[in-house]
Amino acid sequence: MIILGIDPGLATLGYGILEKDANGNSRALDYGVVLTPKEERLPTRLAILEEGLNKLLDKCTPDEVAVEELFFSKNVTTGIAVAHARGVALLTCVKRCGRLFEYTPMQIKQALTGYGKAEKRQIQLVTANLLHLKGIPRPDDAADALAVALCHSFTSRLSGLYSI
Amino acid sequence: MIILGIDPGLATLGYGILEKDANGNSRALDYGVVLTPKEERLPTRLAILEEGLNKLLDKCTPDEVAVEELFFSKNVTTGIAVAHARGVALLTCVKRCGRLFEYTPMQIKQALTGYGKAEKRQIQLVTANLLHLKGIPRPDDAADALAVALCHSFTSRLSGLYSI
Repeated sequence: MIILGIDPGLATLGYGILEKDANGNSRALDYGVVLTPKEERLPTRLAILEEGLNKLLDKCTPDEVAVEELFFSKNVTTGIAVAHARGVALLTCVKRCGRLFEYTPMQIKQALTGYGKAEKRQIQLVTANLLHLKGIPRPDDAADALAVALCHSFTSRLSGLYSI
Repeated sequence: MIILGIDPGLATLGYGILEKDANGNSRALDYGVVLTPKEERLPTRLAILEEGLNKLLDKCTPDEVAVEELFFSKNVTTGIAVAHARGVALLTCVKRCGRLFEYTPMQIKQALTGYGKAEKRQIQLVTANLLHLKGIPRPDDAADALAVALCHSFTSRLSGLYSI
């Protein structure tokens, strides 16, 4: 099963693609970012995001998609921009893959470390370790996207166990 | 020239379609709302919005589109939901009509009444009056969408005059 994880953003949208085997073990197939130029107008940047995501969906044809929910307490203006981008990401993904799941930052931290308030650095180390990567994935947005994909992989595995 | 005005929203997206003649006078061709069911998940609601907007764009084939910018000081959660919907609206419209313009609520109020802090009711009355409508358009979201379309009609007319 192929899982696509997405960390939404307007300037930088992170993605991480996992392959999960029959035993529930995951390995990273790819990760990276879709970038949009700051000098472009918002509608154009959203169209660039959609195009980048569609290319990604063409390439990986995910069985399930996991998208991080927004959390921000400081900068409302930035949050609004990210929400525009997240709307486009959700729309683009749901049109290609109906099995779309959303996770809060706390759920991701809880799933990966057992502690919902874990530090960002700890999440990145656990992600790298679980996926047997040589170092922490760069940039941060790609590491975050792998973390949400891993969170979904664990959560859906547990859901499966509970449903027996 | 056909102008499509949009008042973005997740549960209710308002639209207003104007025809502007060579003298710069506008008349309303149509107005209304695209609704999404509250019981559906966010990605599904965004897909419903896109479908509704595409049907509208098929029908009116606008030369220019004007979209209201977000303004909220009270409820950040609602603002985030609207921003998701607004991202989808901007994307859907820019893919069909490159001449897309954004106006703040204050710009709209200023354009219609000469006063950037005019009351909502006053804007609605001016909109109905300028478009020779028998009453205030309902629901409010449709009236707001006609107001943003009118704002664009006035602003672009003035821009034209200034450029002579």
